[in-house]
Amino acid sequence: MSEQPVRTVGLLGGGVIGGGWAARFVLNGVDVQLYDPAPGAIERVQEMLASARRAYRRLTQFPLPREGSLTVVESVAGAVRGVELVQESAPERLELKQQLLADASRAAAPETLICSSTSGLRPSLLAVAVKHPERLLVAHPFTPVYLLPLVELCAAQSTKPEALGRAAEIYRAVGMHPLVVRKEIDGFIGNRLQEAMWREALWLVHDNLATVQDVDDAIRYSFGVRRAIIGPFRVGGDGAGMRQFMAKWGPVTLKQPWTKLTEVPELTEAFLDKLAEQTDERGDARAENLSSSELERKRDDCLVAVLQGLRAQGYGAGETVARWEKGLRDRAPKLVDGCRPLLMTRQIPSDWIDYNGHLTESRYLQLCGIATDNLLSCVGIDSEYRSKFGSYFTLETHLSHLGELHAGDHVEVLTHVLGADDKRLHVFHVLRRECDEKPAATGEQMLIHVKTGSGRSGPAQGSVSERILELAHRHAELPRPERAGASIRLR
Amino acid sequence: MSEQPVRTVGLLGGGVIGGGWAARFVLNGVDVQLYDPAPGAIERVQEMLASARRAYRRLTQFPLPREGSLTVVESVAGAVRGVELVQESAPERLELKQQLLADASRAAAPETLICSSTSGLRPSLLAVAVKHPERLLVAHPFTPVYLLPLVELCAAQSTKPEALGRAAEIYRAVGMHPLVVRKEIDGFIGNRLQEAMWREALWLVHDNLATVQDVDDAIRYSFGVRRAIIGPFRVGGDGAGMRQFMAKWGPVTLKQPWTKLTEVPELTEAFLDKLAEQTDERGDARAENLSSSELERKRDDCLVAVLQGLRAQGYGAGETVARWEKGLRDRAPKLVDGCRPLLMTRQIPSDWIDYNGHLTESRYLQLCGIATDNLLSCVGIDSEYRSKFGSYFTLETHLSHLGELHAGDHVEVLTHVLGADDKRLHVFHVLRRECDEKPAATGEQMLIHVKTGSGRSGPAQGSVSERILELAHRHAELPRPERAGASIRLR
Repeated sequence: MSEQPVRTVGLLGGGVIGGGWAARFVLNGVDVQLYDPAPGAIERVQEMLASARRAYRRLTQFPLPREGSLTVVESVAGAVRGVELVQESAPERLELKQQLLADASRAAAPETLICSSTSGLRPSLLAVAVKHPERLLVAHPFTPVYLLPLVELCAAQSTKPEALGRAAEIYRAVGMHPLVVRKEIDGFIGNRLQEAMWREALWLVHDNLATVQDVDDAIRYSFGVRRAIIGPFRVGGDGAGMRQFMAKWGPVTLKQPWTKLTEVPELTEAFLDKLAEQTDERGDARAENLSSSELERKRDDCLVAVLQGLRAQGYGAGETVARWEKGLRDRAPKLVDGCRPLLMTRQIPSDWIDYNGHLTESRYLQLCGIATDNLLSCVGIDSEYRSKFGSYFTLETHLSHLGELHAGDHVEVLTHVLGADDKRLHVFHVLRRECDEKPAATGEQMLIHVKTGSGRSGPAQGSVSERILELAHRHAELPRPERAGASIRLR
Repeated sequence: MSEQPVRTVGLLGGGVIGGGWAARFVLNGVDVQLYDPAPGAIERVQEMLASARRAYRRLTQFPLPREGSLTVVESVAGAVRGVELVQESAPERLELKQQLLADASRAAAPETLICSSTSGLRPSLLAVAVKHPERLLVAHPFTPVYLLPLVELCAAQSTKPEALGRAAEIYRAVGMHPLVVRKEIDGFIGNRLQEAMWREALWLVHDNLATVQDVDDAIRYSFGVRRAIIGPFRVGGDGAGMRQFMAKWGPVTLKQPWTKLTEVPELTEAFLDKLAEQTDERGDARAENLSSSELERKRDDCLVAVLQGLRAQGYGAGETVARWEKGLRDRAPKLVDGCRPLLMTRQIPSDWIDYNGHLTESRYLQLCGIATDNLLSCVGIDSEYRSKFGSYFTLETHLSHLGELHAGDHVEVLTHVLGADDKRLHVFHVLRRECDEKPAATGEQMLIHVKTGSGRSGPAQGSVSERILELAHRHAELPRPERAGASIRLR
């Protein structure tokens, strides 16, 4: 990844959407200037930032960039000063948004991009009072903004293509998937699709054909699992093409009265009561006695789990995560620093726990592996080195379990280079809870440098080799770990 | 899990749905009698069974039950003879289904359940010619039937509640989530919701507002990721309840013309051409040159990844998978067999591979862990033993890498008990490709028995202890592995 295309953004509004933008930008190393006059807005943004921090720590094993700053400002002018991008996320009222965008356009430099997060208003309506309207467009994200990758870009009649391209580059740099909407339409694409199902869902509940819980279950136990992967047009299944699919299913699904979409149910008091009762009072949340922030955390944990699954497959939203991670890896610092063991910290995700309630044993080795990758990255082994010269492979590992680690523990791994020659690298990792003297586990490893493409060992190259020998030399001054060189015996 | 509530099912039809049912039942240990007069049907079912076998191997680490048999029969009568359940999955034509169900009901025993997989026909329409119609109902699954857990159960006017309960129990036993539809309606719940979005999607493409690819991307990069977790009614996000949500969004989403659902687009030749071109010819599949069976495999891999992510969170469809796995674990055989190393086999999933193209190092330890769990299960440690007495925890592991493993390799792990006393258990695992003499890796482990709830070591109990000592005694006759007791040194 080259230079970041954005250093500072101005956010107008810090609600669910604005706060989500703040979290995504700050955690991707972008400075944020936030304007929101509502009482308590800043506290809510700070909370959302904490949630996002937790989610990102679970989402990727790579070190995140140094966080951007979050500066609270008192005016629209303060928010837009010196930024590359203004992101407006005010309530969904046309006049309010028009006013805010006009004010922002007058205070901002003429080349500053101005984007609205509106869920459905056409950009040409928003552009009417904007100064230099060629840089105004809609950039519509999805909740939670810090986790879901899609951002729909919709140009007004006045928008220049160059502004669209610049905006796409910025959103891509903070891990998003920009989708350009081809024509200016109300509701864009995602929300039109969502609202169609939403209307049908309301009818099902209104007509007592299903409860709110039935509707949610019918989705999340069935095609909802598939929707993270394939949209409605990837029909597949019997290998037949779309034409055959339509011949078979077109008449059935479109002519039979399966849906009731010609009207919308009237939002009477009685209907609203029913919805509120079935939604807010229903079983799963109440039974577990979860607060709304706990529910939100559960949602984030599940989203992270789905994203990680898709990332391993390099598919859909997982592809976006993989691209973002590649950027993180390439931007990770590569410095060797003094005579101290290398330090890496991680928080234990709850899905690393086994049926006994402890960290699964293979995860201890995974932590050692991450620490080793961290060490290799510090000595300069990056994707370029790997493709040209080679990398280190593990020959042997000796793990010793001395304590227990649990979900949520903040763990540090101290890595001591016990020795090295031109090919081999002998390391010793100590895993312990932060601020805990006693190790929870130790991991001793012998690695060997393997030449790219050959499958054979060979000496490490140039500065990588120098840095490793230098590190081994410095670490020789550290006390040798007691368990180094131990073997397993039943005495 | 207690006794399986079903031993044999009769399937009428072996297309995408019937073949999916065959795979789900056979892989869950249920015998299948299949009737499908269409040419090539059996070959397609066999292919689907192979896909499902592959998916299940990746979905769970627990041994699957011995597969049920798949018997192809020549008549409806042959399919329904001696079965507990008949599942009809014929094409979606009322008269055809009525005839098949009537024939099946005359040939089957009077208590045999008769279920139709229809996507939308009301069960009372299907029941008209059925003998003993009190045992007929709709059981509507989702593609792929062997992976997605939902099955919608819809009773006809004539259906007895007892039949509904018995059907739910059978589907639950093969890893599904039955949802009882409260009123008899066309399209049930899931398809009505899907079709609503489908209509909107067709309009977007019809009106050139979006391409097929745009629609699919708008879903899978955004709310599609969320749909595996939460339906449309779990609004959340700002902590406000449904009433507040409706006050804010009700008018916006329902009164503004975001959707175009009052009609359906006419399926003209020109529109069908456009759909077929954009769907069948589009970039991602063509660019990668994937055949339809490769696409299907990719879909299954992604579904498995999402299900595994959700399982780790114990949420939605993942909860169903976790319940199913618990059944598998409890039903695993617990026999100690002769003086041979214990054998476990696995195929390496493609997401176990690291950036170097080899099996990630922590996965070697995970394979050792699965082999150890297998050993513990063989000596009688099950969830009951764990909750009453205790379990073995790993103290130390020494892994040695001697070769490489790659995605798709069939790997066997041979487990040799090197020694044991009342508390400790010393094992040595050899990991190798099936039919390969040379090990790819070895793993030596020392485990200790820890008493439930105490966090302290203590002797193993009763028959578990006896079986472990017996195993150590028998394995003492095996040659001692060369690498046992080795330590790591840079010589």
